[in-house]
Amino acid sequence: MKNFTYYTPTKVVFGKDTEAQTGKLIREFGGTKVLLHYGGGSAERSGLLGRIRASLEEEGLAYVELGGVKPNPRLSKVHEGLDLCRKEGVDFILAVGGGSTIDSAKAIGYGLANGGDPWDFHMGRRQAQGCTPIGAVLTIAAAGSEMSNSCVITNEEGWIKRGYSSNYSRCRFAVMNPELTYTLPKYQTACGCVDIMMHIMERYFTPDPDTMLTDGMAESILRTVMHNARILMKDPENYNARAQVMWAGSLAHNGVLSCGVQEDWASHQLEHELSGMFDVAHGAGLAAVWGSVCRYMLDCKPERYAQFAVNVMGINMNCSDPKETALAGIEAMERFFKELDMPIRIHELGVEPTEEQILEMAGKCSRGRSRKVGGIRPLDEEDMAAVYRMAL
Amino acid sequence: MKNFTYYTPTKVVFGKDTEAQTGKLIREFGGTKVLLHYGGGSAERSGLLGRIRASLEEEGLAYVELGGVKPNPRLSKVHEGLDLCRKEGVDFILAVGGGSTIDSAKAIGYGLANGGDPWDFHMGRRQAQGCTPIGAVLTIAAAGSEMSNSCVITNEEGWIKRGYSSNYSRCRFAVMNPELTYTLPKYQTACGCVDIMMHIMERYFTPDPDTMLTDGMAESILRTVMHNARILMKDPENYNARAQVMWAGSLAHNGVLSCGVQEDWASHQLEHELSGMFDVAHGAGLAAVWGSVCRYMLDCKPERYAQFAVNVMGINMNCSDPKETALAGIEAMERFFKELDMPIRIHELGVEPTEEQILEMAGKCSRGRSRKVGGIRPLDEEDMAAVYRMAL
Repeated sequence: MKNFTYYTPTKVVFGKDTEAQTGKLIREFGGTKVLLHYGGGSAERSGLLGRIRASLEEEGLAYVELGGVKPNPRLSKVHEGLDLCRKEGVDFILAVGGGSTIDSAKAIGYGLANGGDPWDFHMGRRQAQGCTPIGAVLTIAAAGSEMSNSCVITNEEGWIKRGYSSNYSRCRFAVMNPELTYTLPKYQTACGCVDIMMHIMERYFTPDPDTMLTDGMAESILRTVMHNARILMKDPENYNARAQVMWAGSLAHNGVLSCGVQEDWASHQLEHELSGMFDVAHGAGLAAVWGSVCRYMLDCKPERYAQFAVNVMGINMNCSDPKETALAGIEAMERFFKELDMPIRIHELGVEPTEEQILEMAGKCSRGRSRKVGGIRPLDEEDMAAVYRMAL
Repeated sequence: MKNFTYYTPTKVVFGKDTEAQTGKLIREFGGTKVLLHYGGGSAERSGLLGRIRASLEEEGLAYVELGGVKPNPRLSKVHEGLDLCRKEGVDFILAVGGGSTIDSAKAIGYGLANGGDPWDFHMGRRQAQGCTPIGAVLTIAAAGSEMSNSCVITNEEGWIKRGYSSNYSRCRFAVMNPELTYTLPKYQTACGCVDIMMHIMERYFTPDPDTMLTDGMAESILRTVMHNARILMKDPENYNARAQVMWAGSLAHNGVLSCGVQEDWASHQLEHELSGMFDVAHGAGLAAVWGSVCRYMLDCKPERYAQFAVNVMGINMNCSDPKETALAGIEAMERFFKELDMPIRIHELGVEPTEEQILEMAGKCSRGRSRKVGGIRPLDEEDMAAVYRMAL
């Protein structure tokens, strides 16, 4: 087991009606002037924003509002929020929404606490020294941003999608009421489940030995998400299934499954270029590239993929040919993705990258040949292009 | 899934040589004048205390020392620490040791921050409003106190052992170097493994339905501890086994396995009276009562114990007689305890409570008939006495 630091101070308040505690929680963590940040109209129509406003007012909290955050959240919206917060003297940012809204809030918080343009952090030009406190009321189980240290923003100039991670941006609190996810369209529910599973698998497919503890947790959480995703395809208002998936989404990405383990993240990095260029849904993009990534890496550690096949997908072990078992596991997961109406190839996303676009994505993903991605098999620019082609 | 709050802000710094970071971590969390609190002479002899002192001095931190914490930590030592801290103006308490030392530090911290006698909190006379910041350098994988909200103290006047829990006492940081546990005697290693497993099982044996997510995590962590405990019985300096057990010890008790679940804690509560009265090792005391608790509760939810038997102990399910499967699982766990040279009956602890003492323990445990303990079957005073008799 490798040395590690684990630090996840987010206070989670989970369950029915918990959004009523939002104002109190902001007070608890020292907020006085709040930016209420959200996405589209569904939180307004459902009455959620009304309940949140009432909770802020009950605590006597002053607030300003900024809606309109889009999936693959945009840098221009971050700048808009930053201007507003600076003008209004905001000292606490409340994100009501999913990963996009929370990440947009984190980027605003970085800008507010550090000055200048927060895009600098995403481009590696400087390191953040703090972040204005963030809280989240989660409405989509997917990105795990409510407990993670991660923040992914898309710059419309050049459609560059980049992540930045630091503990400063971890939410002070996360309010999670599974009922708030009842009205999500089937497609978004499925995308969310895939995203959650990918956060687990990016940590699970490790070159490291000696990972029994995190392996077992990862395998059981994966099985739980699959079981409950199937229930939600038929019964979207099943409270327990929504609850299991929502909490799994936080555990998948809060760091507990990374402890002592070298991570992978190849699928995520390849997908970031795809959704940066074509604006596809993140979860669907992940499903479209995952199988190709696994098949491309398989020969470097077939026994790892065989363990996945046996312990997660319920495949019988073929001890004389672990690779056969491994491939059967990958195919079984792809069948599961199809059950959720998720793509397993890029063309099923409705986009067909040209060879030129593939080379552009590989170039961006490798930062112009300056980095590799992936744990079990580190992928260089040529490997990335090869995987994109496999996944077409 | 029940509503829950999850809040575990402890920063874990895990791995080889991490104790060298202790001084820096105290600075990070605002400490300036430190109480260095520890147990017996082994931390001195091994050179650990010397390395810790060097780390504090490197950061220019002032400190005073108080050693001599005993297993089942005593209220008199807490009072001694409290007097010293008040006199010296201590603002940070560093516990170097296992659960006893950390709990002693927590009780001192409660007293320092709230004034008066911290025993009040353990007796339910008042609630803490804060706690002086605590950090831990862990030397025994067992109690999980390094990440838990729990603090258990024994009052020598009447030999009363009582817990008090609040988030205020959660350690700011926990330094965990598995190498520091290499020299633990086999008996203490075994006691620690049992304690860890019991922290998991006290949460796992729940009357609640819909606990798939935490069930899977609990089952896999239990299997991991068992696997690595067997390795440690033969190879006490196996780094990976020490590491898996140490991290499992924190996860077992930091709250992540309680999320949304009604807990049990009957074995712990019964054992507290036993070790309060007879000063036996906590882990051994737990092993001695666990089987009897399970058999006493079994009929209220045999399918739960059958699930444990199948998923943790690898017993084949007898679908026409789940109780048979359940009993086989309990027996298998008792065989495992014997493998670790742990007792499975009270007399194997070298103590033989009289009927009068049994009634006294049951009276204390039920707080004079004012409370029941246990989840699957809430035990009243008569039940408690019956379980003690079964376990003799």
